[in-house]
Amino acid sequence: MSIIRRFNGKDNDYTWEGVEVRRYSEEFDGVTKQVPVGPEEGSNNFHIRYFHLEPGKHSNKEFHPHEHGVIIMHGRARVQLKDEFFEVGPKDAIFISGNDLHQFVVLGDEPLGFLCVVVGRR
Amino acid sequence: MSIIRRFNGKDNDYTWEGVEVRRYSEEFDGVTKQVPVGPEEGSNNFHIRYFHLEPGKHSNKEFHPHEHGVIIMHGRARVQLKDEFFEVGPKDAIFISGNDLHQFVVLGDEPLGFLCVVVGRR
Repeated sequence: MSIIRRFNGKDNDYTWEGVEVRRYSEEFDGVTKQVPVGPEEGSNNFHIRYFHLEPGKHSNKEFHPHEHGVIIMHGRARVQLKDEFFEVGPKDAIFISGNDLHQFVVLGDEPLGFLCVVVGRR
Repeated sequence: MSIIRRFNGKDNDYTWEGVEVRRYSEEFDGVTKQVPVGPEEGSNNFHIRYFHLEPGKHSNKEFHPHEHGVIIMHGRARVQLKDEFFEVGPKDAIFISGNDLHQFVVLGDEPLGFLCVVVGRR
């Protein structure tokens, strides 16, 4: 069944009706994850997640076989892709290949928010 | 290989470096499609497309087995999902199930822009 998840956030504080704001992980204070299009919406083939990182925070430095498709929604980041570093900002698109080491580090005083697409089975 | 597609658009005129602006189809003047994360980036499992519709325009009314994950980026639309109609706006998220009839019709004077995720094989 098709479903609409209405945005009910404000500015750089993104939330959607009926979508839980989860902690990214126990070790990552100031980083949250929401899944506006995922298993709860019936989307099993791909998921659209939204990650929010407060200034000074970073995502886990990791690599894994599944790929990421990222669209920056707000804020700026230094992104590591394998052994290279790039600065990215709003609406930049990033494709992260399987098994490429990657990490997002927030730059500046604004929170970073990005959409991250993954396949459902991973 | 991971790749960054830098946003080089402005306001509601979205473009990315190295990403072609394509016509949606011959019959749909005023509707364009870009694929910032797709086969050309090496993303074969899922694609992130961006559709831009000028005021007064609409997408094709269609249904098909593959699903859509949509995030509205700018503008407002009346979206049809099967036999129901909803108004959506910026950052609303929509999951369109396989085989659900769907169509986007632009509302108001602003162009409509949305991200639309699909699986690669469809």
